[in-house]
Amino acid sequence: MTEAMIRECIDACLACVQSCETCATACLAEPDIDMMRGCIRLDRDCADVCALTARLVMRGSDLHAQACALCAEACEACAAECGQHHHDHCQRCAEACRRCAETCRQMVAA
Amino acid sequence: MTEAMIRECIDACLACVQSCETCATACLAEPDIDMMRGCIRLDRDCADVCALTARLVMRGSDLHAQACALCAEACEACAAECGQHHHDHCQRCAEACRRCAETCRQMVAA
Amino acid sequence: MTEAMIRECIDACLACVQSCETCATACLAEPDIDMMRGCIRLDRDCADVCALTARLVMRGSDLHAQACALCAEACEACAAECGQHHHDHCQRCAEACRRCAETCRQMVAA
Amino acid sequence: MTEAMIRECIDACLACVQSCETCATACLAEPDIDMMRGCIRLDRDCADVCALTARLVMRGSDLHAQACALCAEACEACAAECGQHHHDHCQRCAEACRRCAETCRQMVAA
Repeated sequence: MTEAMIRECIDACLACVQSCETCATACLAEPDIDMMRGCIRLDRDCADVCALTARLVMRGSDLHAQACALCAEACEACAAECGQHHHDHCQRCAEACRRCAETCRQMVAA
Repeated sequence: MTEAMIRECIDACLACVQSCETCATACLAEPDIDMMRGCIRLDRDCADVCALTARLVMRGSDLHAQACALCAEACEACAAECGQHHHDHCQRCAEACRRCAETCRQMVAA
Repeated sequence: MTEAMIRECIDACLACVQSCETCATACLAEPDIDMMRGCIRLDRDCADVCALTARLVMRGSDLHAQACALCAEACEACAAECGQHHHDHCQRCAEACRRCAETCRQMVAA
Repeated sequence: MTEAMIRECIDACLACVQSCETCATACLAEPDIDMMRGCIRLDRDCADVCALTARLVMRGSDLHAQACALCAEACEACAAECGQHHHDHCQRCAEACRRCAETCRQMVAA
């Protein structure tokens, strides 16, 4: 596990927190909120899990790999849901989730 | 500030986190979700602020009074919104918020 | 997974957050702080993981089982370390960690 | 309050979370841990408050100004303590705290 991988993972987690918070807030203001229930629900989980994972990785916790595994699952679920919606905030969130899942999977494998 | 006040504040914060999480999840499943936007939004803030406040009070942080002041505001805003909805989860949440705001105000005054 | 199991898991997680916060603060004030490094480090991780787990379980997240698995690991590591120290706050923390690990393992198995 | 100010505040909060986590972990490994008690204690509070503040600002919460006010206080207390220690991680943390306090004060004033 290199310094660059750690840095990349932290950055991807924090970018994902931001995308999920932005997406959830925007979904709550969409006219078609009835369609966005799953998105809001998964954004909430994903933001919380990414935020914890970033902090465990930052501090060099013994649990960082297990947290990254959980984080990859949270991100993949959120990406699958957000990716189905045409809103820009959903598409951007799905992209951030996919990238975060990828860096987390690399941390688990390292 | 007595031990009993501290215990009461922590318990009220944690009960409020639970009520807000339960209310947000239930609001996301309501047929009239269009009416519940504000509720979900404020439940999210209130749960996060109560969770932080509980932990700062638990650890005897120097910032506990300032956190309690922020928490009282979060709870009052959430109570005002949730209190307007007839759903049981909203009414219970409003009640937990009011009680938490009250114990937090007592911590600030102590 | 019964309502009682869910309630028990949330309560055990929150009690563990409290024990870890109390233990970390007390360790930071111990004359033999040199011996308490591991305890403070693991209390910090365990409190953060238990706090997230409690909230995911409260909200009925799809990720609750994976979070409980991570939480059981965090609690077991913290219990193993705290259990080696004679301080009351360490012994109480180890006990809360063991109980939380047990309820989390039950959630994973359910 | 401009988009640039909001972005700057979020970035400063996240950089401060990172610096506090890094500093706390490094302090826990210092030979002179006896001198670092205050630093670890305040790093812990500051990281938690900055993390919450970043998220409330990200989501455009009504409470963002009050959270920024609390955050500025957390950062100033941490900067005052960390700034007294010669360790690189303490000096870098003090710098990140001062910058975060400054952007938070700007958000409060805006």
